[in-house]
Amino acid sequence: MKIIVLGGDGFCGWPSALHLSARGHDVMIVDNLSRRRIDMELGVESLTPIASVKERLAAWEACSGKTIHFRCIDIANDYSDLLELIKDFRPEGLVHFAEQRSAPYSMKSSDTKRYTVYNNLVGTQNVLCALVESGVDCPLVHLGTMGVYGYSTAGATIPEGYLTVKMQLDDGQWVEREILYPADPGSVYHMTKTQDQLLFHFYNKNDQLRITDLHQGVVWGTQTEETIRDERLINRFDYDGDYGTVLNRFLMQGAVGYPLTVHGTGGQTRAFIHIQDTVRCIAMALEHPPACGERVRIFNQLTETHRVRDLAKLIARMTEVEIHYLPNPRQEAAENELKVANRCLLDMGLNPTTLDTGLLREVHDIAKKYASRCNKERIPCTSLWISRGNDDRELKKAGVSSS
Amino acid sequence: MKIIVLGGDGFCGWPSALHLSARGHDVMIVDNLSRRRIDMELGVESLTPIASVKERLAAWEACSGKTIHFRCIDIANDYSDLLELIKDFRPEGLVHFAEQRSAPYSMKSSDTKRYTVYNNLVGTQNVLCALVESGVDCPLVHLGTMGVYGYSTAGATIPEGYLTVKMQLDDGQWVEREILYPADPGSVYHMTKTQDQLLFHFYNKNDQLRITDLHQGVVWGTQTEETIRDERLINRFDYDGDYGTVLNRFLMQGAVGYPLTVHGTGGQTRAFIHIQDTVRCIAMALEHPPACGERVRIFNQLTETHRVRDLAKLIARMTEVEIHYLPNPRQEAAENELKVANRCLLDMGLNPTTLDTGLLREVHDIAKKYASRCNKERIPCTSLWISRGNDDRELKKAGVSSS
Repeated sequence: MKIIVLGGDGFCGWPSALHLSARGHDVMIVDNLSRRRIDMELGVESLTPIASVKERLAAWEACSGKTIHFRCIDIANDYSDLLELIKDFRPEGLVHFAEQRSAPYSMKSSDTKRYTVYNNLVGTQNVLCALVESGVDCPLVHLGTMGVYGYSTAGATIPEGYLTVKMQLDDGQWVEREILYPADPGSVYHMTKTQDQLLFHFYNKNDQLRITDLHQGVVWGTQTEETIRDERLINRFDYDGDYGTVLNRFLMQGAVGYPLTVHGTGGQTRAFIHIQDTVRCIAMALEHPPACGERVRIFNQLTETHRVRDLAKLIARMTEVEIHYLPNPRQEAAENELKVANRCLLDMGLNPTTLDTGLLREVHDIAKKYASRCNKERIPCTSLWISRGNDDRELKKAGVSSS
Repeated sequence: MKIIVLGGDGFCGWPSALHLSARGHDVMIVDNLSRRRIDMELGVESLTPIASVKERLAAWEACSGKTIHFRCIDIANDYSDLLELIKDFRPEGLVHFAEQRSAPYSMKSSDTKRYTVYNNLVGTQNVLCALVESGVDCPLVHLGTMGVYGYSTAGATIPEGYLTVKMQLDDGQWVEREILYPADPGSVYHMTKTQDQLLFHFYNKNDQLRITDLHQGVVWGTQTEETIRDERLINRFDYDGDYGTVLNRFLMQGAVGYPLTVHGTGGQTRAFIHIQDTVRCIAMALEHPPACGERVRIFNQLTETHRVRDLAKLIARMTEVEIHYLPNPRQEAAENELKVANRCLLDMGLNPTTLDTGLLREVHDIAKKYASRCNKERIPCTSLWISRGNDDRELKKAGVSSS
């Protein structure tokens, strides 16, 4: 299949592009390199040394014999370039990773809030318009987030996208309806993904676009079967307060002997997936697209759930580094349950890479190997959801001190 | 109260600004004059001759003794100007009409789809960011649309924004939850209003912004108590296929002897409100804002519902002009029921201006007075939701011919 990977230079996009190429697909990466630009803006770097796009592609060609094409297009700003590319390349599959993906970054300032909304919504709308305008019948796979659901399971397992409810008719009867799960985003970033869902719903209904939306949990791990083949293919490892996701951040903190920073009580339960499984899920979704006329497919892309403080304790034991409880910058419940359905991808054949100590060790070794590249000043999260006040109270309620 | 009216030069914005000024508020209009620009782009003009902003404001000052301020700011593109204005003027109320408001225009081409998404979402996001960044505690009143609900009542009255449903817990128990009514937009324009709801939900939850979202029906009529005071204050009357709303379009067609153009079977039931009631509702919403910490208030802003073909028959009888049934450019059910709750505004004191023959006659007379300004070539709707095919079949099913 001819596949375009939008955002194919990023943390999920790059290993996905390699995996699709390894599976024999003809892959075209489209990226505006914004993730590298934001690193510069924030004064941080991936813990792992990332080669330039040119070096990455040359290394892949050298070790696999396969060519991945690359076009530097900003899909939010260069609509006509995107349209021409789709008309010329005529993809048979399109993966859309090209969104600003950090919740803390999206809450940093008015500028980053506005950038996130602009980049994510205008970009997604451009992709959908270009598919309609080009007339190319190409299934779209989009990376969503578990965060569209909010984090309040409240006794009911979160379904895959659609929820069966009963509503009352005027004659008093209660009837069943299936609705999109009510959105409850916790950041501007998560909000854009809930707004993407409405874009997908509309373009699916009006133009019969074939769309799969993958609501992913927190990704951990760094390497995949393909990125490990050459050091120049190595994947990003973000550890800074904005882009570092919780488990990778703990692993790196453990590796460099920095106290593990738990936000709030650590009572947040989150869904997790290993990067190796992410790339497999993307391939499965692309290779099994919805039929024409089928509604938007929504899968939950995660393999397990854990409480943040349990992960911290696990890594603390492994690394003998202590845990520091810090005020939570997010506006969220101190503790939450999370039960999530994830049958769809398992039924398609996903064989989960779970969080056993061996795999943790692998990441720990990567973190240790590149520890000298770590800038410890960039570890704390400096984005605040709102002016201080409420979170210290939560810590006190939960009986933990803030340092 | 000091009030900013964003989009205060448009069809609803202008009479609202006058009404608020007449009620003694200190009004500042912010507008980028995009509605006038789109008229030029489409090669159409309001049936009524619209004075320049400068003339309008001078006329209002002359006949009321009150000053309305004006700033030409594009809220989607000029964030810092908007922010500075809010910091300097320190409004106590902000009305947001500054969105592209035509469904047919939003479906005309890739360019107009993209413009509508960009203008409406980036603009609304900028307003919310500017309120948060400025720290000005100012309630926001936004004009939404009945179209966020879709048009399928299916036996249940549409509530005001929130729907009580039952959902099943893992233990088998069904429990009640109140959710935002599931969105089902019928055009890119309507979609942006459903995405606005998610912006409001988030900024209300995260930053405690006080927001009222008014889901308005189809507006008819032209003049209000204030616009009638001087010919230079006259309101817009759109009759073209893109911006002309259904009832005003029929009245104008009747006035110039052009067959009444019914799309599809005319079995669509729509909600209506007279422009005089629109401006009263805006004032009520501003003068009774939500308390701090209250969730987003949603009111349905309509006074009656009618089937399109019944309105066509009414106007046909009044004007002795025949009805033409044309293929429906929209993707929608040929016939729909529509029952809508609208207690909130009635309970606040709205005394509805209903569709009586006297008022219809008045609008018809305005249309007749300016009939010579009508360009009959611009009456048909030329925007198509999708390539032709399905609608002729619907007409045949319903037993009406297409001409």
